[in-house]
Amino acid sequence: MEKQNDELEQLAINTVRILSADAVQKANSGHPGTAMALAPMGHVLWTKFLNYNPKSPDFANRDRFILSAGHACILQYNFLYLTGYDLSLDDIKQFRQLHSKTAGHPEYGLAPGVDVTTGPLGQGFANGIGFAIAQKHLAARYNKPGFDLFNYNIYSIVSDGDMMEGVTSEAASLAGHLQLGNLIYLYDDNHISIEGSTDIAFNEDVSARFRAYGWHVQDLPDVNDTHALELALINAKSETQKPSLIRVRSLIAYGSPNKSGTAGSHGSPLGPDEIKLVKEFFGFDPEESFEVPAEVLKYYNEKGARGEKTEAKWNELFAKYKEKFPELAAEYEAAFKGELPQGWADKLPVFKGSDPKMATRQASGKVLNAVAASLPNLIGGAADLAPSTETNLKDFDSFTSENRGGRNFHFGIREHAMGSALNGMALTKGVLPFGATFLQFADYMRPPIRLAAIMKISPIFVYTHDSIGLGEDGTTHQPIEHLATLRAIPNVTVIRPADANETSFAWKVAIEKKGGPTVLVFTRQGLPILDQDKYGKAADLEKGAYILSEASKNIDLILMATGSEVALIMQAQEKLEAEGISTRVVSMPSWELFEKQDAAYKEKVFPKASRKRLAVEMASPMGWHKYTTDEGDMLGMTTFGESAPAEDLYKFFGFTVDNVVNKAKALL
Amino acid sequence: MEKQNDELEQLAINTVRILSADAVQKANSGHPGTAMALAPMGHVLWTKFLNYNPKSPDFANRDRFILSAGHACILQYNFLYLTGYDLSLDDIKQFRQLHSKTAGHPEYGLAPGVDVTTGPLGQGFANGIGFAIAQKHLAARYNKPGFDLFNYNIYSIVSDGDMMEGVTSEAASLAGHLQLGNLIYLYDDNHISIEGSTDIAFNEDVSARFRAYGWHVQDLPDVNDTHALELALINAKSETQKPSLIRVRSLIAYGSPNKSGTAGSHGSPLGPDEIKLVKEFFGFDPEESFEVPAEVLKYYNEKGARGEKTEAKWNELFAKYKEKFPELAAEYEAAFKGELPQGWADKLPVFKGSDPKMATRQASGKVLNAVAASLPNLIGGAADLAPSTETNLKDFDSFTSENRGGRNFHFGIREHAMGSALNGMALTKGVLPFGATFLQFADYMRPPIRLAAIMKISPIFVYTHDSIGLGEDGTTHQPIEHLATLRAIPNVTVIRPADANETSFAWKVAIEKKGGPTVLVFTRQGLPILDQDKYGKAADLEKGAYILSEASKNIDLILMATGSEVALIMQAQEKLEAEGISTRVVSMPSWELFEKQDAAYKEKVFPKASRKRLAVEMASPMGWHKYTTDEGDMLGMTTFGESAPAEDLYKFFGFTVDNVVNKAKALL
Repeated sequence: MEKQNDELEQLAINTVRILSADAVQKANSGHPGTAMALAPMGHVLWTKFLNYNPKSPDFANRDRFILSAGHACILQYNFLYLTGYDLSLDDIKQFRQLHSKTAGHPEYGLAPGVDVTTGPLGQGFANGIGFAIAQKHLAARYNKPGFDLFNYNIYSIVSDGDMMEGVTSEAASLAGHLQLGNLIYLYDDNHISIEGSTDIAFNEDVSARFRAYGWHVQDLPDVNDTHALELALINAKSETQKPSLIRVRSLIAYGSPNKSGTAGSHGSPLGPDEIKLVKEFFGFDPEESFEVPAEVLKYYNEKGARGEKTEAKWNELFAKYKEKFPELAAEYEAAFKGELPQGWADKLPVFKGSDPKMATRQASGKVLNAVAASLPNLIGGAADLAPSTETNLKDFDSFTSENRGGRNFHFGIREHAMGSALNGMALTKGVLPFGATFLQFADYMRPPIRLAAIMKISPIFVYTHDSIGLGEDGTTHQPIEHLATLRAIPNVTVIRPADANETSFAWKVAIEKKGGPTVLVFTRQGLPILDQDKYGKAADLEKGAYILSEASKNIDLILMATGSEVALIMQAQEKLEAEGISTRVVSMPSWELFEKQDAAYKEKVFPKASRKRLAVEMASPMGWHKYTTDEGDMLGMTTFGESAPAEDLYKFFGFTVDNVVNKAKALL
Repeated sequence: MEKQNDELEQLAINTVRILSADAVQKANSGHPGTAMALAPMGHVLWTKFLNYNPKSPDFANRDRFILSAGHACILQYNFLYLTGYDLSLDDIKQFRQLHSKTAGHPEYGLAPGVDVTTGPLGQGFANGIGFAIAQKHLAARYNKPGFDLFNYNIYSIVSDGDMMEGVTSEAASLAGHLQLGNLIYLYDDNHISIEGSTDIAFNEDVSARFRAYGWHVQDLPDVNDTHALELALINAKSETQKPSLIRVRSLIAYGSPNKSGTAGSHGSPLGPDEIKLVKEFFGFDPEESFEVPAEVLKYYNEKGARGEKTEAKWNELFAKYKEKFPELAAEYEAAFKGELPQGWADKLPVFKGSDPKMATRQASGKVLNAVAASLPNLIGGAADLAPSTETNLKDFDSFTSENRGGRNFHFGIREHAMGSALNGMALTKGVLPFGATFLQFADYMRPPIRLAAIMKISPIFVYTHDSIGLGEDGTTHQPIEHLATLRAIPNVTVIRPADANETSFAWKVAIEKKGGPTVLVFTRQGLPILDQDKYGKAADLEKGAYILSEASKNIDLILMATGSEVALIMQAQEKLEAEGISTRVVSMPSWELFEKQDAAYKEKVFPKASRKRLAVEMASPMGWHKYTTDEGDMLGMTTFGESAPAEDLYKFFGFTVDNVVNKAKALL
């Protein structure tokens, strides 16, 4: 006989609790307590609120779910398995094992149904703001009367740790400002962190703080009261102006007689004896592990199966939409697949050698504005530096609470949230996001850059004011180590173009890039435009390094540089050649693009036989030795900068033609 | 005849406004608007509240002043000049010029009276929390009835930008929790940011937010009402439980007929024509520049001169204190000078080769606890990871709102604020701070690490869980590029010890370090202890790299590694030697310490003639080429990690004896 619904639901919830404890125990590492505590929350979400299709995890109008408290991932894995995603009980048993889908924190692209990689606290919270922005923007662009194509919400489970992280504050303030009513966040207020009670470090009034940001806040005293949870979620859904925070009190490791409510159950397995007690507490067989009652599996499977109908209905709607709005539908379909509109690259501007000096940030602004109309899905903004980074799309509106179709974003002085929001946007198929600030402030947003690289998604990070060349703002604003530290992240492509034409192609690479973020690095100061009729072609930027100006005869010396220093080594080449030293100049805007070339091309640019090489970059020398060889040298910055007009700094730090020439000659 | 006081004060304020506009104009770059707007605020602070002695900028009981809105530094420079610091009108005229004291943002160590380098927004705000902690701690340790040695406050001017930055939220929450009533922050609410009105990105209720953090908040409608400002500051001083925020509405570039209240006056000179109008507005001669009425200079000079008496009185008090509490006085005097107690290093533990495996984080915990009693000024904590980072000082209390003498800090899950607070603590002579988290989360706190390096101060940053060796927590938690990115910052010393004994000496270096921060990097996993009777001495860690195990005959090969990989290359050496390949093993815990050695020592460790070298480190290879040479190789991590037990990861990523041996043999 089938159990009464309430009884079955309770059994289902307890099954998830015990599966969580078992999986962590088998892995002999992990975080059982939060998953056990939040099983009722997961239950309510996956059975009554989340809109998803386990057979089609990419379904465009699905609700997004973000486990910002990523350490509790076994909770999510269990619901993915139980509702019918391509994740088996064996996968649950392989929790935290090599090459399994069930990694120690949820990884996008590994387990189906994981919308975003989380773990570093605060990131998931802030990614959600990007997801929410993208939903609003897609709806504004594509929804039509009778065609509510995009009306999904963004759900997240967040923790005390998330609440303490600064990126959360930035993101919450931005979400309140933008009135992202499609955000529904459940805050697991469990009073426990690794060092013990949260009271030892955290006693602010979180609810009042979020109300101050403009959020709708509800407080629930007990996560086990699933009816109250449902009601709160219904309220949150109907609140469409303000983002929603539902603060839910929970007891970590609920059901564990000796460990519930303690820090000890946060990050360690309960131990075999305690798990038996848990099973007894919930009326399960203490000798069994990974027990899933058939009716529970059936129950969750049926809940999951509803998604097929939901998606079929949406597909029908989209088919009708396509008939009525064929162009928009085609545009969206292409964008969903990550295809770019035909011919967009023809709009990339070409600059003449006779044009006046131009900062690459300025060139970047011209490129962006030249291609913006052809790339309707390109959206972006700056952390209160649009005028300085030249990233405003002049023919388009700003994205605001009133205008969701706007393509310019005002992220405020919130670099970190901007980075994390870009990731949420980039994870939403159909938009192509960029965000800008000064290179120095890349330090404020490294975690999202790294996560973009881990997730193999391709937001574009734009950084201007890239060296001591920014001048008077001084030491605190002059990047030194930043190029090295960005190049050091696996799967990130860093491009520092030498002039306006290389800037055009840098944007081309960034926009076409798949499988990882691109970092574009631009100058504040004006640079001459290298004459395309006389020198190597800027199109070769796509190869990462190319011969810009060939040596007059057999190579005595190779000069290489990136960005603003390329013009400097061109002048040095002239002088060296005049002294009879046959000098090749290599422009090397991107190490990563160069490393992708075949051995023959690498040998062509840097012949093994020509090992007298000087690299010039107003940045840390770290990593250059590989290209300059044991017989070469590097002229870089080994100290911090100073506050002074740029020309004075070049002289003081040795970035002059004479010094380059002398350094080069010293190698011969 | 002398002007009436009110009239003189107004003239004084206007003089500062015009000096600010003139200085920015002469530099032809800078931020005039905020300085012009806040002149009344500066006036009230420097004449009526701040306790300081221009002739002795280091006076121990001075109030600290932090210009978190560092771009407005010309305001601070003007008051330093006018009140009699060693900063002249010529220095003001040299604003933003090479090697001048008046850099584009205030730099500690450059202009006397600048307590901390600011510029990157949010940092100053958060530094203040560290200053406030240090004041409370010094008072708890040294004040005695009748001897209120340390009773200073921490004043700061903060901006909209500071308020938006996440680090501010972390720091404000921590300050509220710790009830740092010695914080008095003035918030310049000018409604203007670079992109225009702050309304475009920022409309949260800042006052409500700060009340939620537990701050005392006052709102003032007009910065020009100096009497209201005074009253609010008196209130703030008398509120000793809660940190104070005084929110003050201002009009950017007040007095500029065409530019006040606009973003255009934020970051650019007003222009010569507009400056003339400003001078007319304030009744100054429009044709004069850098005009300082004699009575204004006299007035401010007299205000500054009071500080000599204040300090003399304090010195007297301290002399009496010294008589009554000679030991405490001597302890403080030594700590003030940065001297360490005699014999402290004798307490450093020595570990035996026969001891069981020990993680370097564990060894670090033993070292810390062994020396803590001998180093009363050593204080620190973790970002909610004390148990995991093993940084708890077991014999000492926690620093709380009730116990200011505690030496253990619970920073909460607020890595960024922890880093910035450590800087404020390290800037307070008399304490020696450390802070800990996982190496991965160093990414959350790079700005303060960099600023410590710029300021040449020496907080100790402790990072554990330093590689894929942490295992199951997976990709998001496994550092790859982090060692490279920390090594890339000028003036930072990174040390990754190979075992428990190297850990002892790593702490010795960190504690003795002057002139820059030390980053200590420890493992999660156990490591064998290298037998000090058989191999090179761990004391040589201080040289950065040393011969740990010598080749049996002429060197065929050099193996080098840091941290956990040293044990691996020791095993590889054994195998290689067994195959007749004469192999030297170099332990290289710190590049920076090695680079400080003379050429002879470097040649001894890495003879130029021995260029078959293999470096092994479970991290990005970036930068190793320099040490391995063109004829060597590096076994590192060129991708992100995975979630799995550590042993499985070692095998998968090739950190096995066999793979090291094969890579090494391939070089020969």
